[in-house]
This record gives sequence, structure tokens and C-alpha cells, in this order.
Amino acid sequence: MASGLQVFGQPASTDVARVLTCLFEKNLEFDLVRIDTFKRQHKLPEFIRLRDPSGQVTFKHGDKTLVDPRAICRYLCTQFPNQGNRNLYGTGSLERASIEQWLQAEAQSFNPPSSALVFQLAFAPLLGIPQDHMAIAENERKLQQVLNVYDEILSKNEYLAGDEFTLADLSHLPDSQYIVSSERGRKLFTSRRNVARWFDQISRRKAWEQVVKMQMEHPGAFE
Amino acid sequence: MASGLQVFGQPASTDVARVLTCLFEKNLEFDLVRIDTFKRQHKLPEFIRLRDPSGQVTFKHGDKTLVDPRAICRYLCTQFPNQGNRNLYGTGSLERASIEQWLQAEAQSFNPPSSALVFQLAFAPLLGIPQDHMAIAENERKLQQVLNVYDEILSKNEYLAGDEFTLADLSHLPDSQYIVSSERGRKLFTSRRNVARWFDQISRRKAWEQVVKMQMEHPGAFE
Repeated sequence: MASGLQVFGQPASTDVARVLTCLFEKNLEFDLVRIDTFKRQHKLPEFIRLRDPSGQVTFKHGDKTLVDPRAICRYLCTQFPNQGNRNLYGTGSLERASIEQWLQAEAQSFNPPSSALVFQLAFAPLLGIPQDHMAIAENERKLQQVLNVYDEILSKNEYLAGDEFTLADLSHLPDSQYIVSSERGRKLFTSRRNVARWFDQISRRKAWEQVVKMQMEHPGAFE
Repeated sequence: MASGLQVFGQPASTDVARVLTCLFEKNLEFDLVRIDTFKRQHKLPEFIRLRDPSGQVTFKHGDKTLVDPRAICRYLCTQFPNQGNRNLYGTGSLERASIEQWLQAEAQSFNPPSSALVFQLAFAPLLGIPQDHMAIAENERKLQQVLNVYDEILSKNEYLAGDEFTLADLSHLPDSQYIVSSERGRKLFTSRRNVARWFDQISRRKAWEQVVKMQMEHPGAFE
């Protein structure tokens, strides 16, 4: 197909993971360009350089360059409406409006406490950085409030924006996966019946399983 | 150090492996830029695209761009004489002349039959391509003649160009490693006492062990 889509970044980054999942859902061909810095015989751990679990992603398509992962996902869905999963960004304007609301909720309410917890619960221990227990408690409290609302919604809908898996759900996967990798984080999800069912369902998507596989091959912090 | 050295290519390629080994021997900091093409959820196997086990390597340092792996190794040794292994390209003009002779012997006599055998013995089976038994026999015969000369030299010297491990030896590692990974190929080395001792010695270099580790993480043909 030679679509000329290029992604620059490490799969371990949650922002890169969002974009990769979208590309796999859309069955698009793309180049992943990965840059590793080696010092002597050791690779510099990705997250020592990044510090921020959201990492960085750059996307290029011809002359177009985008760096916001949610904007990249929207772009892929509108540029390639008939490739792969056609429901990802909704098929009608009402559905799209609902997906947009959820994408904003994810970016503004879910992601800030989540990415703080990803760093504290998943990365800090691997990097030998002492956990900030105040920060954990504070962000856990914020995320609990968010997840209570989600649990309510998910008692009525199968997915966040309705009966189909969409970008709204997809965008929650990368943070959530890292959070549930710790026991303390997992409880936030398993203790809410509908959230637990939803996360279990969305994390079994083939596209996401492929991204998790790539993350395990290049865990960043471990290497 | 921020040396600005960049290598573009896959570690599984023998040409890339030569350059990586040299960079590790010289203890230089560098960026490895790897491009993987994904089609749906599958990575396109590197060697289906390359066909040629010598693969491709591109090296950049500032405005300088080089694509010949042996030229890149020479360049690294002359540009960074005091970094890491200082003996790699010889310390006197006589020693350097001898290393040069061996680099040419490797490129002109050892590499042609070797890279044919790398493809036939190591990659063809993984790619499900039928082995060409005529080509194997023919290249095995050529490599045997080359290795007979090597065995004679290595009965007098510890390494090819004298008593030190140099670029002369280093440049032989990538093809040799793939060849000895097959039983038929391994016999070419183990049946010659001095060649066997020499390969055993050079393949235990820390720099080379790191490259083999990287190749196993990204085997190209397997993924």
C-alpha cells in the first residue's frame, strides 16, 4: 500500500501506544522509527531520559506533522475512513460528538491523575526512584472520582460512547494497562464492576495485544 | 558526550553488526535509528525485504555520510583514536598496513562465499525458502580454501594481524556467527584447530556479545 505513514517514538510511551493501537485498528501500513541511544554497551533507559510516562510521539504523513496523539488518531480515522475498523471515530455526527466528549474527558480528567500513577506505580520502582506516597494518594483519590462516573455510565453502555469500541475507549488503554500492572492500581479497576468488565473487554482487542507485545519487547525502563 | 554519531539499520544485518561492534569496542555514544514497517498487526520480516544477509547500513556524523561498513569502522578508529580500544586499527603504520590487507581479504575472499552461506544456511530455512544445495556446496568449497589459509596464519599469530584483536578480526564476526549457527556451517570452523580457537576467542568480546544480544532481540527473519 505504501501509505507513507511514519511514527517516531518508543512503544513503551503511552502516547506512542495510543497511535500504534489506532494504526492497527485501522489496518494501516506504517513505518515505526525508533531511536535508541547507546552509551558504551548499555542502552540509556528510555524513561530516565523522558521522566514523563506520556513520552513523546511524532507522526508524519507527507507534509503533515502532528504530535498530539489524540489529534493523530482523529486524523487517521478521517483520512482513512474505509480502512480497517470503520466505527472507531463514529459513523454519524451524534456518535462522533459523544466520542469527542469522551476524548476530552480522557485527556482532561482521566489522563492527569492516571499518568501520575503510571509514573509512581509502574516506572518509579523500576528506575529505583522512591515512590511519592502523597502524590499516589492524591492522584488515586482523583482517579477514583473519575472512575465512579465511568462505572455509572458503563452500567448502561457496553463501551464509553455507546455499543461500539471507539477512540473514546482506545485512548484509555495505555495508562490503564500500566496502572493495572501494579496491585494497588489494579484494585482501582477491579473494585468497580462495570469498569472491570469494560477494561477486560477493551484490553483484549487484537490491536492492543500487539502493542502490549511490542512494549514488552522494548520495555524502556528495563533495558 | 553527545558525539552526534548515528547508525541507521537493523542489528540483524551483518553490515550493521560490524559497525555496532566497532562502536562498542570504541566505547562511543551513538544513536541507533531503526525503522520497522508494519502491515496490519504484523511486522514485515526484515530479510524478506532485504533478501541479502549483508543488509544495509547508513552512518552519519555531522555532514559526513558513509554506507560501507568497513569504511565506517576505519573512520571511527581514525576520528576517535583515544576512545575505548586504541589497538583496533593498529598503533603503527606496519600494523595498520597488515590490518588493511586483512580487511581487504575479508571483503574480497571471505565475505562473498560467507554471505552466500549465511543466506542459505541461516536465513533460507527461517524464511521457508528451499535451500540451494549447489550454491551451498560451491560456496562451502570456496570458504574451505580461504579458511585453510587462515588456519595456517592463525597457527603463528593469536589474531589475524598479530597479537591483538583488531578490525581485521572484528569484520569477520557477523558472517561467522550466522554460519556457525547451523551444524553444517559450524563444522567449517571447528574442523580447523586454529580457526576454531580464534573464533572462540573473538566471539567472546564483550562488544560482540552485546551485538548478538541485540540480534536475538530483533532477529529480523523470525518476527
